[in-house]
Amino acid sequence: MDLHGSFHVYDTTLRDGAQQEGLNLSVADKLVIARQLDDLGVGYIEGGWPGANPKDTEFFRRAREELDLRHARLAAFGATRRAGVRAADDPLVAALRDSGAGVVTLVAKSHDRHVELALRTTLEENLAMVRDTVSHLRAEGQTVFLDAEHFFDGYRENRAYALEVLRTAAEAGAEVVALCDTNGGMLPDWVFDVVLDVIESTGARVGIHAHNDSGCAVANSLAAVAAGATHVQGCINGYGERTGNADLVTVVANLELKLDRAVLPQGLLREATRIAHAVAEVTNVPPASRQPYVGTSAFAHKAGLHASAIKVDPNLYQHLDPLVVGNDMRLLVSDMAGRASIELKGKELGYDLSDDRELVTRVTARVKEMEQRGHTFEAADASFELLLAEEVEGTRPSYFDVESWRVITETRPDGEAISEATVKLRTPGAEPARSPDEVRRLRGLGSDAPADERPVSKPGSEGVRYVVTGEGNGPVNALDAALREAIGQAFPEVAKFELIDYKVRILDQGHGTDAITRVLIETTDGESSWVTVGVGANVIEASWGALVDGLTFGLRRHHR
Amino acid sequence: MDLHGSFHVYDTTLRDGAQQEGLNLSVADKLVIARQLDDLGVGYIEGGWPGANPKDTEFFRRAREELDLRHARLAAFGATRRAGVRAADDPLVAALRDSGAGVVTLVAKSHDRHVELALRTTLEENLAMVRDTVSHLRAEGQTVFLDAEHFFDGYRENRAYALEVLRTAAEAGAEVVALCDTNGGMLPDWVFDVVLDVIESTGARVGIHAHNDSGCAVANSLAAVAAGATHVQGCINGYGERTGNADLVTVVANLELKLDRAVLPQGLLREATRIAHAVAEVTNVPPASRQPYVGTSAFAHKAGLHASAIKVDPNLYQHLDPLVVGNDMRLLVSDMAGRASIELKGKELGYDLSDDRELVTRVTARVKEMEQRGHTFEAADASFELLLAEEVEGTRPSYFDVESWRVITETRPDGEAISEATVKLRTPGAEPARSPDEVRRLRGLGSDAPADERPVSKPGSEGVRYVVTGEGNGPVNALDAALREAIGQAFPEVAKFELIDYKVRILDQGHGTDAITRVLIETTDGESSWVTVGVGANVIEASWGALVDGLTFGLRRHHR
Repeated sequence: MDLHGSFHVYDTTLRDGAQQEGLNLSVADKLVIARQLDDLGVGYIEGGWPGANPKDTEFFRRAREELDLRHARLAAFGATRRAGVRAADDPLVAALRDSGAGVVTLVAKSHDRHVELALRTTLEENLAMVRDTVSHLRAEGQTVFLDAEHFFDGYRENRAYALEVLRTAAEAGAEVVALCDTNGGMLPDWVFDVVLDVIESTGARVGIHAHNDSGCAVANSLAAVAAGATHVQGCINGYGERTGNADLVTVVANLELKLDRAVLPQGLLREATRIAHAVAEVTNVPPASRQPYVGTSAFAHKAGLHASAIKVDPNLYQHLDPLVVGNDMRLLVSDMAGRASIELKGKELGYDLSDDRELVTRVTARVKEMEQRGHTFEAADASFELLLAEEVEGTRPSYFDVESWRVITETRPDGEAISEATVKLRTPGAEPARSPDEVRRLRGLGSDAPADERPVSKPGSEGVRYVVTGEGNGPVNALDAALREAIGQAFPEVAKFELIDYKVRILDQGHGTDAITRVLIETTDGESSWVTVGVGANVIEASWGALVDGLTFGLRRHHR
Repeated sequence: MDLHGSFHVYDTTLRDGAQQEGLNLSVADKLVIARQLDDLGVGYIEGGWPGANPKDTEFFRRAREELDLRHARLAAFGATRRAGVRAADDPLVAALRDSGAGVVTLVAKSHDRHVELALRTTLEENLAMVRDTVSHLRAEGQTVFLDAEHFFDGYRENRAYALEVLRTAAEAGAEVVALCDTNGGMLPDWVFDVVLDVIESTGARVGIHAHNDSGCAVANSLAAVAAGATHVQGCINGYGERTGNADLVTVVANLELKLDRAVLPQGLLREATRIAHAVAEVTNVPPASRQPYVGTSAFAHKAGLHASAIKVDPNLYQHLDPLVVGNDMRLLVSDMAGRASIELKGKELGYDLSDDRELVTRVTARVKEMEQRGHTFEAADASFELLLAEEVEGTRPSYFDVESWRVITETRPDGEAISEATVKLRTPGAEPARSPDEVRRLRGLGSDAPADERPVSKPGSEGVRYVVTGEGNGPVNALDAALREAIGQAFPEVAKFELIDYKVRILDQGHGTDAITRVLIETTDGESSWVTVGVGANVIEASWGALVDGLTFGLRRHHR
């Protein structure tokens, strides 16, 4: 099935989405998001404007080497050639050609006043720029899409010219002409009429690129599709300049679930909620709880009147089954959701929990209670595995007992700040409460499988006490250094561990001193990496919790 | 002019909006919001369900005494009488009758399955409940509107019955039958068709009540109006259960500004941005920056390309003049920006830079260089203004000289962590390098305008030295406390300053120790707020930079 041929889902998060106020993506961020978009099954990922800024050039270079996309094709965005220069001689066009992207999306002016005032050239030369640039890139073997900037405004002022731009592009070989509502002020009926006219007048394959300035980006996209557009552009989480671009997931979900159009590879829409939230972790823009389909409140019901009817038939109170987008119904009173996913997650981690209903109930309740306090286990598998191990084995995996810690950060005479941490702890930890046989059974392993071989101190033994000071260019680095040096004397393998990512989120913004801090830490042992979570009123305390979990998880993995 | 007769703008923030997760309104909050909605000129304010909960009963009691509405009429929301009881004998109906509200909005089931499963009565009795309750309240002198719950879903399953409910209400005297998309799953074309059919089949005056579950609440409301609805319900800021209700301001602005319908008293739409933000202050839900029309980003422009054309004609890049909704165009300074946006931004902040090309070049270069090192100015206007002031005035605004600082975070015996900071500094700061006359000229002010009146120490004076220790539930809170206490002795106004938001971002993820931390801090003086940025290898150092900028900016504003 050639999905790219039948309908284009075209994501522009990495280019137009990055225009959002406060959103700043590094090259590494862009690579991570591209993989997530590919997991969602979009047909095209617009990666940026190579040649126009060094970060985007770098992104395309690294994408060639590092990105192995299964569903999507990478598109490079750029402008038509400058006035008065041959496309083949324009260095910015060359950057698009050499980007390695199979698709180039060329932005062109289609509004006569913009040609004159912003581009400062003639209407005729603008057409030549479109023709020449499209032909050149096509001749070089690239697929070309045209983004007709300010198309709807231009169509109102000078319909003939706006259409001529599209015709010129299509005749030169552009596969799609995407009509951009660049200023975002259109309404659905208007979009419908214009798209219909464009298709009748030009015969071109039409795309839609909508912004949300009138609160109608989703509806405008649907109106364009109803009128015959077969290429839809949008951004994950509706990111974008001003009020944002069309929210890609909402548009796609409406098309698939309400209008019966298959636009993503089958089954992938179920990943939408997970992916939308994962991207939000990378952008560090807090996800909107009221976001359609994927918001945490999107299927949340305040209990009360509705509760009993929901028990009879939940679909009486929701527009569709949230599982189709990977979301979940939430009721404030019951724990209907959760048990099944806890069981599945346990299985994934090697625990067969299907026979122990009481255990699953206990874990579900604890997860809910801890998430209420600010934890998140969705992004912190390792912390969840430690929690599960604690409930299954009866005691939390532990390799050291912390007595106390302290960290000082201060200015040095040269003006730079330095952090110094002191950690006091004992190794090794206490004996596990369950026998290796019991643990093997609980993990669903055969009796000859290797059990947990972590060192166990003799009952009554006090272990060895360490007092270690570490330095770092930040309080968490200093704590990490001190902690690893202390336990490294008993467990030399921690020398291989490295803290590779650290994320901080303040929850309950606006509530001043009540704010809770959530820290996510990613640790690697050089072969794989794992994420742990810590929560606390104090950011250092939250970081400490995540650090300890990170080292504990790594040690547990090495001692299995 | 009888606006209530021609078109109803019906706000349900205080009832349906309050269903939003995490939104909790006291009676006092509701009274404040009602006044704000009245300032906006809505025709009806639904205040709650008197009789069903004591808070709402109290609201209507106090509203009678305290609310003096100029534009709006107050509506009480409630259900039709219980099955098998006369309306006149139903205490909940009596509470509506005695609420003092001139309008009662009765919610009634119009979906046959809901009548059977949730209401547990017969279809015939449900009709009798509608007829009896409407007649009773009409006879008591109240205007009655009907909210037909789950109407669109009901219409799909049993069109005849759904229409019969509406007819029954209209015949009994309901002035409006509002069609509720209670589950929020409709799309605009569907809404249009149904509303058209309802008007043709029943002749009733039709209203629309839309939710945003398909991301189309605004478009659905507009579609209903296009089909003939003359009563539109919504909530300010799109508050509401799950994904929220139709955003009232967006719907009204589209109707007035794009579809030429006068729906608010003339001139009041200009209050929209102020009122939307004022309501957000009461609800304590942070306003969405990307909200159409009234969001802080709604008319913010980032791209450098655009800025040069914006100088020629701002309307080339915005769908309408932001002043018509009381918003403002904002240019975001970022490394994508060029000279033109720096110049425009300077103007926004009161500096006429158009004659000083060299200065603009210097500022542009500095912004690019600092953003390369991790700063971001688009989200930190206050830090940008300090940078600009430094370049214009020749020295960075400064009210104190920091000697050193130190912060300690450690575990306490009870397990919680505590932070303690010590700050050493001197006040007041040094004399500015440029004269007040020079500064006035650079700001484009007349020579009699008040110049910067900040305190200036005598040349050679050492000022006063402070050594202050502060505590906090985190290192940044502790530093903030110590810093404000130290400079508060020279500048008592800092007592009003409060740190209200704190964001941390680790840049260059994956590069371990090379990582740079960026901190954004929002500070308020109780009247307005401003954002500053700090950057450093050490998160505490970055926070310190943002804290110092935040206080400096606030002091500068107070000393102008």
